[in-house]
Amino acid sequence: MSDSEPPTAKAAAAFERTLLVHFHEIDRAGIVYFARIFEYCHRVYEELLAEVVGPLEPFFQQKDWGLPLVHAEADYARPLRLGDRVRVRLEVERLGERSATFAYTLTCAATGEPRARARLVHACVSLGDGFAPRPLHPDYVAGLRRLGLVAAQGP
Amino acid sequence: MSDSEPPTAKAAAAFERTLLVHFHEIDRAGIVYFARIFEYCHRVYEELLAEVVGPLEPFFQQKDWGLPLVHAEADYARPLRLGDRVRVRLEVERLGERSATFAYTLTCAATGEPRARARLVHACVSLGDGFAPRPLHPDYVAGLRRLGLVAAQGP
Amino acid sequence: MSDSEPPTAKAAAAFERTLLVHFHEIDRAGIVYFARIFEYCHRVYEELLAEVVGPLEPFFQQKDWGLPLVHAEADYARPLRLGDRVRVRLEVERLGERSATFAYTLTCAATGEPRARARLVHACVSLGDGFAPRPLHPDYVAGLRRLGLVAAQGP
Amino acid sequence: MSDSEPPTAKAAAAFERTLLVHFHEIDRAGIVYFARIFEYCHRVYEELLAEVVGPLEPFFQQKDWGLPLVHAEADYARPLRLGDRVRVRLEVERLGERSATFAYTLTCAATGEPRARARLVHACVSLGDGFAPRPLHPDYVAGLRRLGLVAAQGP
Repeated sequence: MSDSEPPTAKAAAAFERTLLVHFHEIDRAGIVYFARIFEYCHRVYEELLAEVVGPLEPFFQQKDWGLPLVHAEADYARPLRLGDRVRVRLEVERLGERSATFAYTLTCAATGEPRARARLVHACVSLGDGFAPRPLHPDYVAGLRRLGLVAAQGP
Repeated sequence: MSDSEPPTAKAAAAFERTLLVHFHEIDRAGIVYFARIFEYCHRVYEELLAEVVGPLEPFFQQKDWGLPLVHAEADYARPLRLGDRVRVRLEVERLGERSATFAYTLTCAATGEPRARARLVHACVSLGDGFAPRPLHPDYVAGLRRLGLVAAQGP
Repeated sequence: MSDSEPPTAKAAAAFERTLLVHFHEIDRAGIVYFARIFEYCHRVYEELLAEVVGPLEPFFQQKDWGLPLVHAEADYARPLRLGDRVRVRLEVERLGERSATFAYTLTCAATGEPRARARLVHACVSLGDGFAPRPLHPDYVAGLRRLGLVAAQGP
Repeated sequence: MSDSEPPTAKAAAAFERTLLVHFHEIDRAGIVYFARIFEYCHRVYEELLAEVVGPLEPFFQQKDWGLPLVHAEADYARPLRLGDRVRVRLEVERLGERSATFAYTLTCAATGEPRARARLVHACVSLGDGFAPRPLHPDYVAGLRRLGLVAAQGP
């Protein structure tokens, strides 16, 4: 952080979980199947979401808005193997008017070595209206702020 | 079939599909993960169901009854490997008052050699009523009969 | 335990883990896909296996024997839903000459209510010899005993 | 194609398959789980690979080189639903010295409407040497050319 950063600004926190690589997640090449990385990221996102909106099953039953993925990408540094413990670190990269971008860093929990990075972009949509775009729900934004995942803005 | 079988009885047909074993379905032991067998069976059941009740998405949106699994079992004869073509044969084993039992035979499509057998038991339930048991829906039974999957009964 | 039980007999322990139901494990009916139950059980078995034989990746790289599934079955009592915490309890049901049978009980971690039961039977095979049957490896049996999962035998 | 294109140049072909959306591929939001798109793409790649290098199981048993993913990305246009038939079109986007980039277009097979686009980048590595980078194997490049997936170069 540079000296010139306004004193009221606060760096955003991250949300982290450690996952264990399972037997069925390995592919014929003997390493974690590449698309599982997205599953790992989303599993951590789900735990975050539960802290933001409360228990997920009633949330999905009742709400009239959703946050489907509109973009997903990953870069793979080194393969993950059976029994590895993977540290997944989620950060809010950007909150737009109608979308939220999350950055994920996956490292070996034992050594801290990088394994993969991913970025997932969710768009807010109305469910009753054929997935029509709508602004991010205020409860969602407020929840992310409450958890310190959105950097406080300076004056 | 014995000579004494009534002349009006007709053996039930089977419903078959051939599936290809994919890269991500292989586990760390280098063979198809055991639980994928159930997925293979259910995929064939879904194709059958679409012939019985019509397109599946509107079916699941509109109906007030469902057929969740109450029992599943499989016996594994020989491992399946990447690129294998698997013949899955579905037969109606039993139609009860409130449940339907399907028997599945999985063979190597190239050689006919056995790979696995499975049995899946679905119970009919009311969805609006906390999964309360109910009789098999007549449309479902009629559809299975129409496809010849239920043996015609003698006089 | 009855009074008449021989004093040297000791009841076998169980091995337990609590799992969280994820978003992608839900099917079109809105509940956990039935075959995921087997995945849940095997994930707990993998954690047990790591305590029995050590880190799994080197184990799978080096050993010349394996324990593929020869039978799997499950009975489903009540559906599992997104966000549920599931308690999976593994017990050794039977150690045969060449096979091991594990019984799994899945309950709601919050209430203790039953969700499903499963039984998985593994056979010991030689990997270098086309999956030819062989006796359970002594290290495997010793590990299960060390963890207290096999009841001590009376005199 | 512009008039000025050299007469010896030939547009590259595409490789296509149609897939059916299954029950277990749907998530709690009632649509295809976003990471399944990558699975769909890779399934089609596997069918291509089998045409390029022959049967996949012996290929993975014998070769000393591999093509792990180093990058994956997808853009989602409209959700896929249970029972949809998805047309997956694979094109070679770029063949580098040590990597191959494939572009995937997923459309509704019935209407041709876009559903998603994806890009997968594979790097060639030596398996016996800790995944050290190496040039694309000539057999791999030759196979892609033989199938017409790499545009012929002008003089």
